[in-house]
Order: sequence, then structure tokens, then C-alpha cells
Amino acid sequence: MASSHFTASVSERPVAQVEADLEPSTAHGADLRFHGVVRDSEEGRPLTGIEYSHYEAMALKELLRIGEAMGREHPGHLALVHHVVGHVPAGVASILIRVQTTHSAEAFEICREYLRRIKASVPIWKRPVFAEGTVEAGAS
Amino acid sequence: MASSHFTASVSERPVAQVEADLEPSTAHGADLRFHGVVRDSEEGRPLTGIEYSHYEAMALKELLRIGEAMGREHPGHLALVHHVVGHVPAGVASILIRVQTTHSAEAFEICREYLRRIKASVPIWKRPVFAEGTVEAGAS
Repeated sequence: MASSHFTASVSERPVAQVEADLEPSTAHGADLRFHGVVRDSEEGRPLTGIEYSHYEAMALKELLRIGEAMGREHPGHLALVHHVVGHVPAGVASILIRVQTTHSAEAFEICREYLRRIKASVPIWKRPVFAEGTVEAGAS
Repeated sequence: MASSHFTASVSERPVAQVEADLEPSTAHGADLRFHGVVRDSEEGRPLTGIEYSHYEAMALKELLRIGEAMGREHPGHLALVHHVVGHVPAGVASILIRVQTTHSAEAFEICREYLRRIKASVPIWKRPVFAEGTVEAGAS
């Protein structure tokens, strides 16, 4: 789903695959990419991964709402958000936020703001999969 | 050249190659990558690329000095800086700054600060290669 400056997707597709297909730009001097990576522990307990689930009808819609608002507030940037759902192993990214701007300073501010808004309102939930095997990884 | 938290390189190696070899981490939840990309115009004149040259004895040394200072000021992060020298075509990155942190907010602050310091003090110069062919691309 995309508007002129913003592309969003929520799927089981790995971030690395999405990133491999990114197009370069000759008009934007800054290309900032935030990867949110699954860590291997939570509150001291070892994790093998995180199982992400989402409220399908709303997650993409809310991402697009955020993108449209950001486009109004920060004209001129391009952004792409991809969130992985399903099982993501420790050490692997579950979200990619790419922001392209003409100059560098604003890229940091914009990318950070996307992350803040996505965390605050996009209905995607995570369930830690502990190494002990007490929680099975599986389809959500 | 590297210290325990910091790796720096300055060479003709493309950013994409450096990025392909990056190791994942299971301890850092944020992996932020800034790409400084060559644009296709400068002050309205079309460019085909930028020719980067450096003061070889000092560029890497200065990067390492920045990395060491940043390590003291922001303990716990990992960082990698790669700057390309030689000809970089429009649309292609000439610098990669990767910052890994446990949590996301600090990654933005740290990455931006690396960029600011690198721009301020690392002896790498750029010469625009204009589309008209008035400046030839070549070894610096």
C-alpha cells in the first residue's frame, strides 16, 4: 500500500528481502534505514525469537494514516515501512523504516518520529518465544 | 581499523559490498544505517557523480579518534563507518554509518553525532563531476 511518498507493508517477507529490492534515488542525499532487531533475551530470560501477530484490517491502514500525516508535516521526504509478522528469530529484523531526504539532518528526525508513532498506534503485538520451549513458535 | 566497539574504513570498496558483509547482533535491538548518497545535481547543475579524495595518513586516524570519543561518551553502542574514495556515481552511497544500540532512541542520536563529527573533521574532500564533462572523473 502506498501514497506518493510512502510505502507500507506488513507480511511474513523478511526485511532483508525487502531491502534487497529498494530503489536508489539520485535526488535524496540521505537514505536512513532503521532495523528493529529481535534480541536474544527479555528480562534476563533467553529467547529464540518473537512471534508477531497483527490486527490485519487495521495495521496497514494505521501505517498509511501515519505516512499521510508525516507527509503533510515533513513535505519532501520519501519513506517505506515494512513490518514482519509471524516468527522472527533472534538477531533478525522485524521492522524496517527507510527515510530518504534531500539533506541528512531531517532524515534522523523523521525516521525517529515514524518509529515513535508506529510503536504507539499500529496494532502489531509480540509474543516472546523463550529458549526453554515453554512457548511454542507457531502461526498466530 | 577497529577498536572493540568501532570499525572504520576508507577505500574504493562500494558501500553495498560492505553492507553485505555486516554481521547481525542478537544483543542490540536497534541497527540504524545512514547512507550518504551522491545526488545528481549541485546548485542546479547536473552531476554524473562525485570524486572523493582523502588525506590518507589522517582520514582513518581521525575516524578512529571520533570513534574512541563516541565510545567514551555513549558506552554500549557498536558503530561502523565506511567512506568510499574515488568516483561515486549519482544515486550511489559514498558513506555508511551503522550504529547498533540496545534500544532504539539512542541509535538516532549517536548516528547523527557520528555524521556531524565526520563532516566537521575528517579530511575527505569532494569534487563534483558535472554532466557537461567539464571536469573529468579520474583518480585523485
